[in-house]
Amino acid sequence: MCFHWFKFNLDWSYTRKILTMKIGLDIMGGDYAPKAIVLGAIAAHQSLNSNEHIVLIGDTQQIKPLLLEQGFNPDHFEYHHTDEVIGMGEHPTKAILQKPNSSIAIGFQLLKEGKIDSFASAGNSGAMLVGAVFSVKPIAGISRPCLCTIVPKLKGGTGLLLDVGANADCKPDNLLEFGVLGSLYAEHIMQIENPKVALMNIGEEDEKGNMITLASHRLMKQTKLFNFVGNVEGRDLFNDKADVIVCDGFTGNVMLKLAESFYVLTIKKGLKDEFFDRFNYENYGGSPVLGVNAPVLIGHGISSPLAIKNMIFQSRDMINTRLVNKIQAAFQ
Amino acid sequence: MCFHWFKFNLDWSYTRKILTMKIGLDIMGGDYAPKAIVLGAIAAHQSLNSNEHIVLIGDTQQIKPLLLEQGFNPDHFEYHHTDEVIGMGEHPTKAILQKPNSSIAIGFQLLKEGKIDSFASAGNSGAMLVGAVFSVKPIAGISRPCLCTIVPKLKGGTGLLLDVGANADCKPDNLLEFGVLGSLYAEHIMQIENPKVALMNIGEEDEKGNMITLASHRLMKQTKLFNFVGNVEGRDLFNDKADVIVCDGFTGNVMLKLAESFYVLTIKKGLKDEFFDRFNYENYGGSPVLGVNAPVLIGHGISSPLAIKNMIFQSRDMINTRLVNKIQAAFQ
Repeated sequence: MCFHWFKFNLDWSYTRKILTMKIGLDIMGGDYAPKAIVLGAIAAHQSLNSNEHIVLIGDTQQIKPLLLEQGFNPDHFEYHHTDEVIGMGEHPTKAILQKPNSSIAIGFQLLKEGKIDSFASAGNSGAMLVGAVFSVKPIAGISRPCLCTIVPKLKGGTGLLLDVGANADCKPDNLLEFGVLGSLYAEHIMQIENPKVALMNIGEEDEKGNMITLASHRLMKQTKLFNFVGNVEGRDLFNDKADVIVCDGFTGNVMLKLAESFYVLTIKKGLKDEFFDRFNYENYGGSPVLGVNAPVLIGHGISSPLAIKNMIFQSRDMINTRLVNKIQAAFQ
Repeated sequence: MCFHWFKFNLDWSYTRKILTMKIGLDIMGGDYAPKAIVLGAIAAHQSLNSNEHIVLIGDTQQIKPLLLEQGFNPDHFEYHHTDEVIGMGEHPTKAILQKPNSSIAIGFQLLKEGKIDSFASAGNSGAMLVGAVFSVKPIAGISRPCLCTIVPKLKGGTGLLLDVGANADCKPDNLLEFGVLGSLYAEHIMQIENPKVALMNIGEEDEKGNMITLASHRLMKQTKLFNFVGNVEGRDLFNDKADVIVCDGFTGNVMLKLAESFYVLTIKKGLKDEFFDRFNYENYGGSPVLGVNAPVLIGHGISSPLAIKNMIFQSRDMINTRLVNKIQAAFQ
């Protein structure tokens, strides 16, 4: 991660105004596809600038009646027709290889060729991860791209938890990278100044933890790559001790699903509360894949139109802030 | 884990009536000690049989006025005076070695000598674990004793999660052992017939997981030691997919603290609900240490009199059911 003169070229690029952006969206992904996806795209379109275009990828025949029904001028969108779909239960790598004409495979092909500037799907999340790594590749210097989730904070605002499932087994170096990625996302997309980055652990003291977290803590304590504030525990996910919480993908995935089950519980039990309302994933959009050479977002399988709309806004923000360039520069 | 003739000797011992039991209790452990501990002991005493005695271990001078104030006949308890205390923040191993006259060290000494039949404390949990392993030792055949927590189930009843912090790093063999320990606890103490044992993982499918859970799953699938029902995910902690959920101590500790933070949140927000009420750790008592040669229980640092009372009942049940003998037999 050394900085050399080439960084200045990249820095120049940050200042270049984005003239036209193309936000790629898989219309076949998700339990309520294509309807929820198209409705989300229509909703998002109302708030986008004239230079911000949505590119719908999938079976365009299926959505024609939908657009008609909504009285929406189809010319507002661009289209890439594909007639294959990767199912939610399919094996990610096999599916990507065996279905080159699927909406996910085509989406990544377009992203790789620069025909779209971001790609988002609420479909098979494994295939989305594999597709991202196979097509646009990990950023040089990053060994393991990861998946984040946005977490509501009790006192308002949001935080970030990563990795939440891309890497079930991690090494301390990976966790250090996640810290850099999370810090940059929090700074540029969530607009948190000097984000506090913490390590998820089983005690606050430096000497607590398992082999991975003990070694990661030592690395993080020495780093100047982000503002490390030490260990946090399971109980600290929603408080203000940290803006960005780093963990391996196993721990993060278990935590995410446990937290989601509480949210579902409060809904089922009719317990209304402002905090629990903010738990609703729909308000945030999707989970960013960080560490690859283009903006990629994975939506929840049960994505509603609102979730899709917000995932489109996330895509736009990732393009507008040139987050990927900033990550590339940090890892040079 | 082979069964030989000696098992029959042990089996005979199961049928022996327990004439007198001595339930050891550290009166110095916990944030509200000694008051909350003594009040809990007084409350428990009302429901114990005449052969079930509570042995209070700690600074007996401190509790004399308390017993007087409560109008409680001090002869109902037995006492072991100690004048040292292990603080909540002390290093477990150092504290146990450097304070041989502390209530925790003396408690384990009495347990080892058979002068008490169980030992419980809401004090320094690390010192309790170290004390258990140093004094009464792990049961032959068990490499890593572990710590459980009782979990309320949405449809009523309770389940068990283990390990929740004794072993931050685990091998597949350890997780298999936890499955046996949890299954026996659920069967004999929670009276669940043929308990369903599951592995905490990041996907339901057999091939999902990290290196540890993948290997553990294979071991568990082959075992006849318990009723393995496969993988569960973070969202399944409170549903009926499993009675006993096995994980490494890092994952379990993070889950436990995350779940506790939700409970605290519902209390703070005044969200009343029958399920969240059952979350209250006070209703269950303490966390059993499983895999050592005597019943040991660790209470929550903030244990109230109700929690202490229930921890005393848990101790009694572990003695009465001869759970330790049953575990010893299973690992022979």
